[in-house]
Amino acid sequence: MTVVFAALEAALEEKRLLVEDALRRLAPRGGGEGVPAAVEHTLFAPAKRLRPVLALLVAEVMRADSRPIVPASCAVELVHTASLILDDLPSMDDARQRRGRPACHLVFGEATATLTAFALINRAYEVLAEDEGLAADTRARLARELSRAVGLEGMIAGQAADLAFTERAMDFRTLEFIHSRKTGALFTCCAALGAEAAGAAPGEREALVAYAKNLGLAFQIVDDLIDVTGRAAEAGKDVRQDAKKTTFVSFAGVEGARQIAQELVATSVEALAPFGPRAEPLRELARYVVARRR
Amino acid sequence: MTVVFAALEAALEEKRLLVEDALRRLAPRGGGEGVPAAVEHTLFAPAKRLRPVLALLVAEVMRADSRPIVPASCAVELVHTASLILDDLPSMDDARQRRGRPACHLVFGEATATLTAFALINRAYEVLAEDEGLAADTRARLARELSRAVGLEGMIAGQAADLAFTERAMDFRTLEFIHSRKTGALFTCCAALGAEAAGAAPGEREALVAYAKNLGLAFQIVDDLIDVTGRAAEAGKDVRQDAKKTTFVSFAGVEGARQIAQELVATSVEALAPFGPRAEPLRELARYVVARRR
Repeated sequence: MTVVFAALEAALEEKRLLVEDALRRLAPRGGGEGVPAAVEHTLFAPAKRLRPVLALLVAEVMRADSRPIVPASCAVELVHTASLILDDLPSMDDARQRRGRPACHLVFGEATATLTAFALINRAYEVLAEDEGLAADTRARLARELSRAVGLEGMIAGQAADLAFTERAMDFRTLEFIHSRKTGALFTCCAALGAEAAGAAPGEREALVAYAKNLGLAFQIVDDLIDVTGRAAEAGKDVRQDAKKTTFVSFAGVEGARQIAQELVATSVEALAPFGPRAEPLRELARYVVARRR
Repeated sequence: MTVVFAALEAALEEKRLLVEDALRRLAPRGGGEGVPAAVEHTLFAPAKRLRPVLALLVAEVMRADSRPIVPASCAVELVHTASLILDDLPSMDDARQRRGRPACHLVFGEATATLTAFALINRAYEVLAEDEGLAADTRARLARELSRAVGLEGMIAGQAADLAFTERAMDFRTLEFIHSRKTGALFTCCAALGAEAAGAAPGEREALVAYAKNLGLAFQIVDDLIDVTGRAAEAGKDVRQDAKKTTFVSFAGVEGARQIAQELVATSVEALAPFGPRAEPLRELARYVVARRR
């Protein structure tokens, strides 16, 4: 894998470091007793930063300068991290490990973990509002985009449905509904962010969003596969955590889930047809995402 | 009280109904299993809507049309409601009653309550971002204002400090620190919102913010007094809930706390001196807030 994807991995790593640097500048700061330490613990744990990296990659593929959207893409990562803290709470997935570290609430307590998630989402919108590198109407549009991805048609709806269906049988459509919101919504938000940076035409934007939606679902299925087949040290979080839940793997089996992930990647790659060769890095990213082991 | 404050009460009620109507339009809507029902339960419980009402009152005192800031003032109420849900969680104050109804997590479970709080703060920023009645740069400025009031120099810092000091002795400065953030920050945010609507000069804005900061603290102390002396049916939430906590009342006694509240009201009224007679409704509101019994 390292050989096949060496160039892509280098490009992803370069962008990841850029995001990492920006997050250092943009993380919530201030008082709040345990909250800043909990931010440090959770936000700055080893992480792929795939969502913001995707936004930057989309911008570059569209021949745009990706620098102006670095803060906005970090805002998405702040929201994503908030959602991980909440998902891990005892009342939700009751997870013990995340990003290779003990879950936030296990180190700082539930109250501080909950306030930290709140501080992260709040800071995400502050970052967007303060972003002097973007015109005010762009900032408002991006805040709108993010809030839709997060809200009751997006990530929160996905998480709520996921919880409601724990220990209940579910069909493929429901599973797809949940994960296109829970994981997919922030992916599509990032694609839209990259499209925004490039001033993409509506049709181009739509194609990029379709790509990201399918990519997000494929990414989630691979996560489920790692949960079943992987080791905790590789996954950086609890594995076999999903035993009580319907996942793509419990639904379709290991081979079936791999098959679905491959099909989603094919669909996501198809969506890029209008862009021709210049979209190659995005196609490669899609193939890379299903090939990953952690 | 009804006789003395009859005109003020009518004005407050008129504004409250306006806010109530707007909240119906602006509440988060969509999927999310129990979340919409939990929003209905918590956001539309009987409430004074004092924060948005304050914003509208400030705008009017400054001779501005308050209508353009109705959505933004509702955004503050959405955040306030989110903070009530979180404060009541078992890991925080473990409260059983709020706004005259069972606490959100008791009816819908902790997970749904937490997601509901998340959906409310997210929707607050969506309301600001979508607010076509305001120029884009005003929207960005208000989002910035709100995020500062909520973040690690504001409400979240206050709540974190409050939790950290439970069952620990605290001095008056700490108590003031906590509540100027926990309660005061959204009050000052609303005053700033009213000032914004009126295009107030920086000095005027500062005076209004000083007024609101002291008003917020006085309001909090009266809350503590109601907690000690009131009945649950009047308070609409658990009373004597604060037994383990240092409050203004446990710190200074009932008479001492009343005295502090009166002094804060005097300070808040003094801040209004530059405005002369036109600020009379705000002075009356301050006197009303300490006279209230629930």
